[in-house]
Amino acid sequence: MTGEAFSLRTPNPTSGFELAIRLARLAVKTTQPDADIRKSLRADYDQNAGLLIEISHIVAVHFNTIAAANAYWLDPELAQ
Amino acid sequence: MTGEAFSLRTPNPTSGFELAIRLARLAVKTTQPDADIRKSLRADYDQNAGLLIEISHIVAVHFNTIAAANAYWLDPELAQ
Amino acid sequence: MTGEAFSLRTPNPTSGFELAIRLARLAVKTTQPDADIRKSLRADYDQNAGLLIEISHIVAVHFNTIAAANAYWLDPELAQ
Amino acid sequence: MTGEAFSLRTPNPTSGFELAIRLARLAVKTTQPDADIRKSLRADYDQNAGLLIEISHIVAVHFNTIAAANAYWLDPELAQ
Amino acid sequence: MTGEAFSLRTPNPTSGFELAIRLARLAVKTTQPDADIRKSLRADYDQNAGLLIEISHIVAVHFNTIAAANAYWLDPELAQ
Amino acid sequence: MTGEAFSLRTPNPTSGFELAIRLARLAVKTTQPDADIRKSLRADYDQNAGLLIEISHIVAVHFNTIAAANAYWLDPELAQ
Repeated sequence: MTGEAFSLRTPNPTSGFELAIRLARLAVKTTQPDADIRKSLRADYDQNAGLLIEISHIVAVHFNTIAAANAYWLDPELAQ
Repeated sequence: MTGEAFSLRTPNPTSGFELAIRLARLAVKTTQPDADIRKSLRADYDQNAGLLIEISHIVAVHFNTIAAANAYWLDPELAQ
Repeated sequence: MTGEAFSLRTPNPTSGFELAIRLARLAVKTTQPDADIRKSLRADYDQNAGLLIEISHIVAVHFNTIAAANAYWLDPELAQ
Repeated sequence: MTGEAFSLRTPNPTSGFELAIRLARLAVKTTQPDADIRKSLRADYDQNAGLLIEISHIVAVHFNTIAAANAYWLDPELAQ
Repeated sequence: MTGEAFSLRTPNPTSGFELAIRLARLAVKTTQPDADIRKSLRADYDQNAGLLIEISHIVAVHFNTIAAANAYWLDPELAQ
Repeated sequence: MTGEAFSLRTPNPTSGFELAIRLARLAVKTTQPDADIRKSLRADYDQNAGLLIEISHIVAVHFNTIAAANAYWLDPELAQ
């Protein structure tokens, strides 16, 4: 369905954060697969403080998951 | 009630993410079992940036649960 | 107060999900004990995409708790 | 400030759920200590489906904490 | 930036809950450092049921963190 | 994408809280990279009680992650 393979392991917090942003978008993409509609919706949210803040909230939830999956990137042995 | 059997174990993160989307929908389906009403509601949210973003938020919460259930898909021994 | 006894252990994910839905409703029932008012409110949310989606969000949080309580239903020894 | 002593240990899930409701209210009470204002606000939310649902969401978060504190009430040795 | 030192360890659940309320406020204070504006905003939310409920939600998230940091205040050895 | 390197380890809770605020902003910055638009949006939220409260909610989620990554700053051996 989603058609995008991914791993939860990332080399560092920055790339983990980028994955969190990608996952927040992936759910929208899967729920609304029409790229034209998504493009028009993007105009709704990318100048809307409330929606940008809500996206940041979703990123926080995914980042919580990803950070746990990487043991918070504390162990150099686990670094990819 | 929900009438859909499922397991939290999935072979990889992508299928885990798909399950998260399915669970987000399952709760709506159970709360509003009338398919016609759901169809009309779908028209409300699938072009509504705010509601699509909120669905993505729910997916993030379910994905957190599913990722933990699969030990973040890190252990090849556990891969199905 | 709530007057409903329950256990967090359920035989499988499907019944755990049903419990999550029940707990989401139980909090509303306890906060607004008047059945007539709740019935009229139900008419407000069961055709309202935004509120149905928010209920699905609550279900996701309870399901996170219930899934952890059941060790994600992975251990056949613990199955009831 | 809050002036209410409490323990996170409860004898069973039902009493844990009641504590979750109490904690959701306690934060409101502490933020708005004026009982008369709270009473008038109660009229705002107890017939408002959206706010009742949001309260149920808070209860879900507190119940997650309380359930973990009680090891999900699975161990009879820990039962009070 | 925030300028307020704090520890996550508290002697009991009540003081942990108070810290949760303080942290919810601290983020607002840091994002909007102008005390006069905050004072005028306070008039917006302290008689607004929806915003008071949302503050209670934030408190629930911080309390989840603080309760875990204190091992749920179950171990008398750890009591401060 | 985000272009900002960071570690989840911080010397104490205060700096962890500051990082949580930074991460809440980072997701907005990445989703809306245009600094001028962000500046105009800032005028929308920094005098808006509802949006400031929502930002505080995101901070709470990130702080939950960061606090866990630092083992709640309880172990002096781990202090940086």
